[in-house]
Amino acid sequence: MSIRARKGGLARGVAVVGGGLSKLGLFKDRDCKDFFAEAFLEMLDSVDRGVDPGDIEAAYLGNYSNDFFTGQAHWGPIISDLIGLVPKPVTRTEGACAASTLAFREGVMSIASGMYDIVLVGGVEQMSRRTTDEVTQGLGMAGSPYEVAAGFTFPAVFGATATAYFAKYGVDREILFNVTIKSHNNAPFNPKAQFPMSVRDFMNARMEKCRAKGLPIPEWEDEKAFLRDTSVNPPVAWPMHLFDCCPISDGGSCLLLVAEELAGSFTDAPIFVAGIGQGTSYSLHAKKDLTSYEATVYAAKQAYQMAGMTPKDIQFSEVHDCFSMAEIIHLEDLGFFPPGEGWRATAEGLTALDGPMPINTSGGLKAKGHPVGATGTAQILEVWLQLRGMAGGRQVKKPDLRIGASHNLGGTGGTCTFTILERR
Amino acid sequence: MSIRARKGGLARGVAVVGGGLSKLGLFKDRDCKDFFAEAFLEMLDSVDRGVDPGDIEAAYLGNYSNDFFTGQAHWGPIISDLIGLVPKPVTRTEGACAASTLAFREGVMSIASGMYDIVLVGGVEQMSRRTTDEVTQGLGMAGSPYEVAAGFTFPAVFGATATAYFAKYGVDREILFNVTIKSHNNAPFNPKAQFPMSVRDFMNARMEKCRAKGLPIPEWEDEKAFLRDTSVNPPVAWPMHLFDCCPISDGGSCLLLVAEELAGSFTDAPIFVAGIGQGTSYSLHAKKDLTSYEATVYAAKQAYQMAGMTPKDIQFSEVHDCFSMAEIIHLEDLGFFPPGEGWRATAEGLTALDGPMPINTSGGLKAKGHPVGATGTAQILEVWLQLRGMAGGRQVKKPDLRIGASHNLGGTGGTCTFTILERR
Repeated sequence: MSIRARKGGLARGVAVVGGGLSKLGLFKDRDCKDFFAEAFLEMLDSVDRGVDPGDIEAAYLGNYSNDFFTGQAHWGPIISDLIGLVPKPVTRTEGACAASTLAFREGVMSIASGMYDIVLVGGVEQMSRRTTDEVTQGLGMAGSPYEVAAGFTFPAVFGATATAYFAKYGVDREILFNVTIKSHNNAPFNPKAQFPMSVRDFMNARMEKCRAKGLPIPEWEDEKAFLRDTSVNPPVAWPMHLFDCCPISDGGSCLLLVAEELAGSFTDAPIFVAGIGQGTSYSLHAKKDLTSYEATVYAAKQAYQMAGMTPKDIQFSEVHDCFSMAEIIHLEDLGFFPPGEGWRATAEGLTALDGPMPINTSGGLKAKGHPVGATGTAQILEVWLQLRGMAGGRQVKKPDLRIGASHNLGGTGGTCTFTILERR
Repeated sequence: MSIRARKGGLARGVAVVGGGLSKLGLFKDRDCKDFFAEAFLEMLDSVDRGVDPGDIEAAYLGNYSNDFFTGQAHWGPIISDLIGLVPKPVTRTEGACAASTLAFREGVMSIASGMYDIVLVGGVEQMSRRTTDEVTQGLGMAGSPYEVAAGFTFPAVFGATATAYFAKYGVDREILFNVTIKSHNNAPFNPKAQFPMSVRDFMNARMEKCRAKGLPIPEWEDEKAFLRDTSVNPPVAWPMHLFDCCPISDGGSCLLLVAEELAGSFTDAPIFVAGIGQGTSYSLHAKKDLTSYEATVYAAKQAYQMAGMTPKDIQFSEVHDCFSMAEIIHLEDLGFFPPGEGWRATAEGLTALDGPMPINTSGGLKAKGHPVGATGTAQILEVWLQLRGMAGGRQVKKPDLRIGASHNLGGTGGTCTFTILERR
């Protein structure tokens, strides 16, 4: 009866034909207009046959809470003015750290609906103007009201999740080191990364610092020994230590979406939207199992159905690694590995850049940075770059790279999305 | 080439088949979950043939800044849990006081795209937990960053707009009284209104209070004399006085949207979405003319084109009257009356309930209340009730009432929407 039933998906296809990302880091002397402008200009340059900014009909902007972080709300018209879009609409979406994949999804549906042909989607956040304690408080507002009242800041929630996983599968904190080391190995190849350094680079830098100061030089036999040392990797909320937690970041990102039948006007290498899933979760106290996110499972199922694909079809993925533990659970919830096997797959190198299932080639939130409202479209940008063979030193070197995905989580799992892109 | 070019609008029609609104007012001892639950339960009752809440596939929630007002962000999953939607998605939209018409518009496009068939849209806000000064500051965050820094709070912006209008058209503050008196005349017939009183009711109540206290009884010859008296109607930001400004409110609202071809399963009297327009404006300092909102003009043009209608087709409308002056300007920007004639039309009673173009039959934001994130879908609900002949004592009594509209403004005009509904 419905179009969905008849066609099994969107009424009209959508392609990604451009994208941009600002350098990520802490930039107190700049603001969100600067970050978004930087991403927007890079997006314009990225469109093979060019795009006249005047042809953009509407935009969607993900932002978690510039209200809290910067004291300025209602960023739609600010961004509209910035990029010359007035009087066309800019709609802000918010789903905590998944804010800009909600923007992406609304942009896709706005084109599929027939309303628009050419739509900009992106996100922006500035977190550097607040102290670390304030940022923790501000992010805590995105958890369930029952969690924060009980002392569950984000590091605490993911710490509790980790202990539940450890207990369920008989593993310990050592499994988390593999996630951190793997993601940081990719970051030196990402010029936008906040920390373009491997864990070994951190280790060597620390040794060099001791040497320069004439202090005793620590003897770490490898990166794991470095991460075990609480003098360099102190606990935040056990078992989450410093190197298990993504940083506080500023940044902006955007993507240009066009109706499928127009894609050829912009490029010979469009990347198509194959699946867009989104779900919600209960809060911590009402979850049946801490070691799985129902929102991720639901979002993944919706996206796979829409794409007519299974997890086996996905050749690489960005996965929301706000904390190292989160990445392992998502690997399982997305169906890339069976329950209880995400940690082992990581330990065996299966998720490394040269492994069979590369995860977070960008460096992930841990090493690339996590400007929360900008993260979702930044993740999708990484997939787009990989599918176009433009990822430089971190390029996935599989033959016939055609299908990649991106998973984004908001709050303590309250909002999750899964996006599948395809090169045909 | 595009669907839009071929079909002149959405790829698939959408109908409104239910709606609900909480009682508006200040309720410090309740919270947004209560308000939304109240609206949601009323919506369930309003669907003629009923709806199984489990059939709702997704929701959109407008909210301006519960981050600021209540210290809790990321309301999507909270509302999802409240109404039993988990793990299905709830997407928050924000466009200041237009937040929930953005939710409405995204809901419409999500169905038109083929992604969903049955979608809930609504909004919520709790402003009562903050002091009046804090609310003024919180709303100020929705203005342009250049405005607030220059001292332009919202009353000040609309005050400056009024003086510009007065200067351009040779009128004075007296024209504003007509807006206030007209809207308050409708409010006693709206059981949800925060102030279900006419201006004459306020006047009589004041006289009664003086009488009861043995004080001299003021002699006001009519409502205008009452509004001229600064002891009862003090200035807020000249020429905006107390009775020119909408109140601070709490509340929730929602509407049930379904694909056109499914509407008959829910009701014999569906109301169809004919046009949905949305635009953005420059900030105050960059506007060519203070007496017009480019975002409103753009949104109206888009909605009229989509509907294949002109302003003459609209039989009544809700219009965003955050301040009395705003209503007059919108009457002109929406094409209901020529530029410079909005004040005269109001003075002549053309916008009264029994006039040729009833405006704000609900009592408007001034008398009904303005829980900012809930306002947009509350306005559209009023149009739906009118088109179904369910507006009680405030029912528009035109023969063949078929087409109504709703205009919603966010910030100081940064985001505006215009929605046209139609009974076929």
